[in-house]
Amino acid sequence: MVKIGITEKKDENFSEWYTQTVLKAELIDYSQVKGFIILREYGFSIWENIQSILDKKFKKDGTKNAYFPLLIPESLLNRESEHFKGFTPEVFWVTKTGDNDIENKLAIRPTSETIAYESYAKWIKSWRDLPLKLNFWNSVLRAEIKDTKPFIRTSEFLWQEGHTAHETKEEAEKQVNVMLKLYKDFVNEYLALPILTGKKSDKEKFVGADYTLTLEGIMPDGKALQMGTSHQLGQNFSKPFEISFLGKDEKQHFVWQTSWGVSWRLMGALIMIHGDDKGLILPPKIAPIQVVIIPIYYDEGKKNEIIKVIEKIKEQLDEKGVRSYVDSSEQHTPGWKFNQWEMKGVPIRVEIGPKDLDNDSLVVVKRNSRDKKNIAISDNPADSIIKELEVIQEELFESAKMKHSEMIFKSDEYNELCNRLTNDRGFIKSAWCGSRECEDKIKDETGADVRLIEDEAISSSCIVCGNDATNSVYFAKSY
Amino acid sequence: MVKIGITEKKDENFSEWYTQTVLKAELIDYSQVKGFIILREYGFSIWENIQSILDKKFKKDGTKNAYFPLLIPESLLNRESEHFKGFTPEVFWVTKTGDNDIENKLAIRPTSETIAYESYAKWIKSWRDLPLKLNFWNSVLRAEIKDTKPFIRTSEFLWQEGHTAHETKEEAEKQVNVMLKLYKDFVNEYLALPILTGKKSDKEKFVGADYTLTLEGIMPDGKALQMGTSHQLGQNFSKPFEISFLGKDEKQHFVWQTSWGVSWRLMGALIMIHGDDKGLILPPKIAPIQVVIIPIYYDEGKKNEIIKVIEKIKEQLDEKGVRSYVDSSEQHTPGWKFNQWEMKGVPIRVEIGPKDLDNDSLVVVKRNSRDKKNIAISDNPADSIIKELEVIQEELFESAKMKHSEMIFKSDEYNELCNRLTNDRGFIKSAWCGSRECEDKIKDETGADVRLIEDEAISSSCIVCGNDATNSVYFAKSY
Repeated sequence: MVKIGITEKKDENFSEWYTQTVLKAELIDYSQVKGFIILREYGFSIWENIQSILDKKFKKDGTKNAYFPLLIPESLLNRESEHFKGFTPEVFWVTKTGDNDIENKLAIRPTSETIAYESYAKWIKSWRDLPLKLNFWNSVLRAEIKDTKPFIRTSEFLWQEGHTAHETKEEAEKQVNVMLKLYKDFVNEYLALPILTGKKSDKEKFVGADYTLTLEGIMPDGKALQMGTSHQLGQNFSKPFEISFLGKDEKQHFVWQTSWGVSWRLMGALIMIHGDDKGLILPPKIAPIQVVIIPIYYDEGKKNEIIKVIEKIKEQLDEKGVRSYVDSSEQHTPGWKFNQWEMKGVPIRVEIGPKDLDNDSLVVVKRNSRDKKNIAISDNPADSIIKELEVIQEELFESAKMKHSEMIFKSDEYNELCNRLTNDRGFIKSAWCGSRECEDKIKDETGADVRLIEDEAISSSCIVCGNDATNSVYFAKSY
Repeated sequence: MVKIGITEKKDENFSEWYTQTVLKAELIDYSQVKGFIILREYGFSIWENIQSILDKKFKKDGTKNAYFPLLIPESLLNRESEHFKGFTPEVFWVTKTGDNDIENKLAIRPTSETIAYESYAKWIKSWRDLPLKLNFWNSVLRAEIKDTKPFIRTSEFLWQEGHTAHETKEEAEKQVNVMLKLYKDFVNEYLALPILTGKKSDKEKFVGADYTLTLEGIMPDGKALQMGTSHQLGQNFSKPFEISFLGKDEKQHFVWQTSWGVSWRLMGALIMIHGDDKGLILPPKIAPIQVVIIPIYYDEGKKNEIIKVIEKIKEQLDEKGVRSYVDSSEQHTPGWKFNQWEMKGVPIRVEIGPKDLDNDSLVVVKRNSRDKKNIAISDNPADSIIKELEVIQEELFESAKMKHSEMIFKSDEYNELCNRLTNDRGFIKSAWCGSRECEDKIKDETGADVRLIEDEAISSSCIVCGNDATNSVYFAKSY
């Protein structure tokens, strides 16, 4: 018999645990083409929740949605040369339609800067057209040669990419920071995930950006996961794409630009950090089903009464906007259902059996702690359940913060840094002089990158070369 | 000076009028690659409204969303041979990633039947897994060799494709009809567009379907526009893809399938039918902006008072869920703004000037009829405006129905049919024997197709060959 639940322990074989969880909880399935995955309905509804919350936040910030074509002419991709060099090794090229060769091959978008900015140059004429703030929810393709991993590293991924143009450098700068904060608040509040934020090193920044701000999560294996980025593009694209405007001073200026994005990687982080040996644990605020109600009866005795009570509770939950589901299927035992819904990470399970009915009582089981609690059927159970959902959201964030801080170490001794990065797990905070040489040396010796640079200047010496350090940085290996 | 408004008359040069309207109302722009368009923010927000209404309707019918990969292996596309033959001439092929050739070329999805059904075969085991009803909002690519036209004929288009699997032929049949009705109700109620519905001829049906039900709109030039389809796929895919299940009878059966879709063509129909020489006319139920409020002042005199009144009205409209926008920009005259918002098709314009203020009066102008009406500022203007929006929605549908019925003719005489189809515009209803020969003969002589077959059997003789006819059909030229 096929074992239905997760057969690997998260602590023992994290990678296999992850793969089993995303497959068995029916979030995804593999496609025939290597590196491509199918987002199944349960996974998609988590993505829909993420989308709908972020979309409202973007619109509140004055960004509007649009759609740009999938295919980009090579000449356009080529126009900003650093950007082109960065992306071309990963590009999927279209060279034929039907049986005919195409004269100039077309790239499937790896990101839309170039095709969007070609249009921005047409649309922007005067300072009155600024800021222009657009966002695209789409999928992009980047051929992955390394091992792929669902949500984390796939050749196609769902994401959003925002692209703004501004009159001044300062306004673009402000937008870059507004988006970083918007992402951070979302990740903390809805996904219940702590993150570190800061600047990328020049080596790690987006190709074509002046600088990149990043959100970095720490996964249970101690590796970094880049969960979102916000780029100051400066005038690096506006000059080659000739996006200029007539300023208030009656002179022509090039616009200042930003781009920013998050992808379904957010779902990967969510699964990795909150999940346990039983499977997913979803934060209530983004769970497709927040409460699953399971009737328990072994004969027809109290069946109708139980069903009536459940219908009433379901109705109360519906009214208050709680997403609930009644699993009254007959082909499985209650025990089987408990396991199934635990694997799918539903925050709260409600059980009602004949004895509970006699005691005016429901059993409420929390997915995260597996605590059980009895609440009175007659005493407005929907309100108690809503309170429990809030508590769970809070508890998940607290527990994630605990794990997060246990993964961060400080070091001011080079050998200790290398040892930690080689043998242990986590983020190491150290002082760095800012040179590519020292960054590369650590990469060569340990495989770790500079994940982010903290904003504050420090007076200390570089952990690698001993020269004056400019900033504190976090080193870690990454996905 | 560039003329800002639409310079062509809808009646005189319909095609040029259409192109100017979609460009100048800023719904779309052209991309560098022929046949590809950019859906700009104003156009996208119409699409978002269409999406959000349909999405709710799909979910109510038990369909869930998912995402399938963009790229399909040739071998998979090949598995249902008719389907493959139908689509391969239009397929965009990916043959390289970076500098490397791909061993087996990959198709950019022209539609997702094949890639989805490969997975359905894995997921469906028992009758308990049925029905499986999934929908994908995505874009598909089909190389257009004919002249392209925004929304109507483009090499990439936004759409939704639903794919369901059922236990029995009857259930699939029911689903095909449920979807046709869902689309029809949506098009009538929200887009205020009348349509004809019926079955496609075998020649015109979806490649791989048993039969196709269609929604056909009649455009102002008398041409047919296929606005949506719902296909009974029978077991044509389930057999080659081996999608089988253990039935209640403990035997293995192949599933019965349907697929159905609508695209941004709906927007094309909307623009063509409702628009006038001034530009777009949007039905209130899907207009991104339902009410535009324009303050009128030529000096500072009553400016503050006017602004205060407008803010209050805007607040009332917000509260009641009316999508409104205040155009208080200073660089344009009120007259310029009137033209601009008329071109963009906003259903209601509200004007307030100093004299109106003195008279406790607002001017409300309807975009469709251009009727003006005064309503009292003090007398709950939001309610009156909401009533006007409902009236406009109704008027647009009535006027579209009138134009629609004027385009339908009956004929039982072959020469008359050919004359009408060659020289006049519109749909001709006639009796047909069902033979491909007669269908082809009309196509050859007039360029018209069988657009749809009515369900009812008739006793009459075929307009082409004079043999016994089976059904009434509509002939028309098409986009």
